[in-house]
Amino acid sequence: MATDTSPTDAEAACFEAGIKFGSLYHQFAGTPLSPDSAASLEAAMEEAIENQPHCTAVTVAVQRDELEAELAESAADYTELTGRFLEVEIVVDYEDCEVVTCMEMADGYPLMRLESVRE
Amino acid sequence: MATDTSPTDAEAACFEAGIKFGSLYHQFAGTPLSPDSAASLEAAMEEAIENQPHCTAVTVAVQRDELEAELAESAADYTELTGRFLEVEIVVDYEDCEVVTCMEMADGYPLMRLESVRE
Amino acid sequence: MATDTSPTDAEAACFEAGIKFGSLYHQFAGTPLSPDSAASLEAAMEEAIENQPHCTAVTVAVQRDELEAELAESAADYTELTGRFLEVEIVVDYEDCEVVTCMEMADGYPLMRLESVRE
Amino acid sequence: MATDTSPTDAEAACFEAGIKFGSLYHQFAGTPLSPDSAASLEAAMEEAIENQPHCTAVTVAVQRDELEAELAESAADYTELTGRFLEVEIVVDYEDCEVVTCMEMADGYPLMRLESVRE
Repeated sequence: MATDTSPTDAEAACFEAGIKFGSLYHQFAGTPLSPDSAASLEAAMEEAIENQPHCTAVTVAVQRDELEAELAESAADYTELTGRFLEVEIVVDYEDCEVVTCMEMADGYPLMRLESVRE
Repeated sequence: MATDTSPTDAEAACFEAGIKFGSLYHQFAGTPLSPDSAASLEAAMEEAIENQPHCTAVTVAVQRDELEAELAESAADYTELTGRFLEVEIVVDYEDCEVVTCMEMADGYPLMRLESVRE
Repeated sequence: MATDTSPTDAEAACFEAGIKFGSLYHQFAGTPLSPDSAASLEAAMEEAIENQPHCTAVTVAVQRDELEAELAESAADYTELTGRFLEVEIVVDYEDCEVVTCMEMADGYPLMRLESVRE
Repeated sequence: MATDTSPTDAEAACFEAGIKFGSLYHQFAGTPLSPDSAASLEAAMEEAIENQPHCTAVTVAVQRDELEAELAESAADYTELTGRFLEVEIVVDYEDCEVVTCMEMADGYPLMRLESVRE
């Protein structure tokens, strides 16, 4: 007996949402970052990823408190973008299925997770 | 009446698979590439992404024919990695759900898609 | 007889300028790009690289004509950032030595070059 | 009186060397990295950057001690490539001028510097 392994629309929507998250993180990780450049980087990350197919909305919030705390302990006045400085929400719409995903720190690692899948 | 919008294991597995694909593409796109360096880049891409959680296997095949064809028309002896030169398969295992995904060119764009979702 | 191989200030300034160019290009190449997102990407690239040491000014101009021409021939409404869509000028000041550098297309490749070195 | 601001061959060689360093760092920073994947990443970084014009030799050494120390304190079995885990030497030859450059940590930051310029 064959089992159907074709993905559902909801599964495809979740796959699309994952692509956006991996893209956002690995395109921009390592970017030189300071309090003065945070706003322009947020805007560029949002608008760049919103170009991708099925991507309805991207919200990027550089965590200024984390950034200021790191720079206070450093000899430099800038650092590199990494997950520690990011909170992100991405909404994907694929064939009438809406997926909401977010990234936040958990145990010292940036955790990307599915918040909701609504058909 | 409330609708349950919690993701299933299969949906979470598809999200994880998408993350791997977006990561692989946007981490390595733009890398200087020649026929001589193709094998080491394939190996590094595979092993780097296999580090990510729930990622069972990654297979990257730089398309030598495409690469040679591009370089034959060029004054340079290398180019930059982009989707045109890539075929990729990624397998993710998440909570007993196996997702197989692949990337190939379609209409001039690198198309990432779900092949199968097996619980 | 030993030859002094210590770099001059002007040579160090040129090295610094090269770092900024390599950083800018390889950090942002591959970013999803459309006419609507070009302005935010320009601003983010400029402000990110200006964070780097000794970097006085960065000017990034996404070539809208090139971008529109590529999208007119495509099924998609966005593409990926590559040198074909960029003109960049970077000014570095290091120990009273000012270096002006720029990037423009030459023979189908993005050519980064030193414009002037002024002590 | 006009001052000649045309770059010398040595200055152009230093600019080329800087490009290679910025490229190497910002192309690969953020790559998922574990002790098992370190060797393939080293090889890929070396061969990718050696494709670039005038680049004679690239040596990348992932600092296994630093990497093992970080993972020992972490819940995860991989991390992201950053300057802390890297020692790099790059040799550039441009118009009979040889430039040797290296990267090592200084005050918690990856410092790229010119070692020698030999005409």
